[in-house]
Amino acid sequence: MAEVQNGAGAEKLSAVAFTAVKPWVVVDAPKASDAVQFYKTAFGAEELSRVMHPKRKADQEIPLVLSAELKIGSAIVVVSDLIDDDSAPVKSAVTEGVFCLETEEVEPALSQAVNAGATAEGEISEGDSACCGGRVGKVKDPYGNIWLICSPPKKCADVAA
Amino acid sequence: MAEVQNGAGAEKLSAVAFTAVKPWVVVDAPKASDAVQFYKTAFGAEELSRVMHPKRKADQEIPLVLSAELKIGSAIVVVSDLIDDDSAPVKSAVTEGVFCLETEEVEPALSQAVNAGATAEGEISEGDSACCGGRVGKVKDPYGNIWLICSPPKKCADVAA
Repeated sequence: MAEVQNGAGAEKLSAVAFTAVKPWVVVDAPKASDAVQFYKTAFGAEELSRVMHPKRKADQEIPLVLSAELKIGSAIVVVSDLIDDDSAPVKSAVTEGVFCLETEEVEPALSQAVNAGATAEGEISEGDSACCGGRVGKVKDPYGNIWLICSPPKKCADVAA
Repeated sequence: MAEVQNGAGAEKLSAVAFTAVKPWVVVDAPKASDAVQFYKTAFGAEELSRVMHPKRKADQEIPLVLSAELKIGSAIVVVSDLIDDDSAPVKSAVTEGVFCLETEEVEPALSQAVNAGATAEGEISEGDSACCGGRVGKVKDPYGNIWLICSPPKKCADVAA
C-alpha cells in the first residue's frame, strides 16, 4: 500500500525547476503601448515580442496589448494592458511595483529616465542593502512604479557597520 | 557655442547599460524572514545574500531584513521588510506584484506552492500571451503577490488566431 505523507511531515521534495521569472507590469488600457515606448527610451529596453489582444468587442477601437516582453539588461519584464476579461491574469493595474536597476552610470541613467518622462524622487544617496548597496537614485515612472537606479552593491564585508 | 537640443528633438543618446533588473518585494515587517523561507519552499529560491537592518531603536526587538537577494531560475528577486525610515526606498508594502514563473512542470509547481502556503486561484487554463502562452495556473502568496505558473510560451506563429 502506498504511504501517503502530509506536506508538513514529508521529506523535502525534489524542487520543481523554473526556467524564468518575469515581473509583469499591468497598466491601465490602452497605455501599454506607450509604456513599452517609455521603457525603451528610459531604460533602453529591447522589445522581444508582442502579442495583441484579439478584438472581441465591436466598441474596442484601440487594439490592446495582451503582453509585450521587454529585455532590460539580462532580465525580462512583461508589460500588458489591463483587460476586463475573465481570462485576464489580474483585475487591477500594477501601480506600485518596485524594481532595482543596476548600472555603473547612475547619473546618466537618472537623466535618461527623467528625460523620457519619469519623475525624480529625492536625491542620490548611499544605499546599504544587498540590492542597492552603492549610490542609489529613485524615479517613479508614469504608470506609478518605482525604479531604484543603483550602482552595483558592495560586497558584504564592506557593508558591516 | 554648444548647441543645446531639447529632449524631444535630440538624437538618440547612446543607451546607458544596465547590468541587472531585480523586482523588489517589500513585505510588512517583520515578515521578510518568513517570506524568504516561503519563496525557498514554494519556488525553490536560493538565498544569495542577506543584509540586516542596523538596530537603530531600542524597542526594535526583532532584527529586520534590509534586503535578501533570492535567485529563482536565472532571475533575482529582492525581499525586504518595510522599514519606517527616511532611507527606506518605499513607504508601503508591495502587495500586488505580479510575476510569471515559467516551468515545464506546471502541476507540480502549483502543488509545491500551495503546500508551502500559497493560495490557488482559479483553474489551470490555456494562456495566449507572450508570457504565459501555454498552460497557466495562478497562486497568491501570503504577502499578497500573484505568481502565474506557466509552461513556456508558444512561438508567435502558433498564437495567431
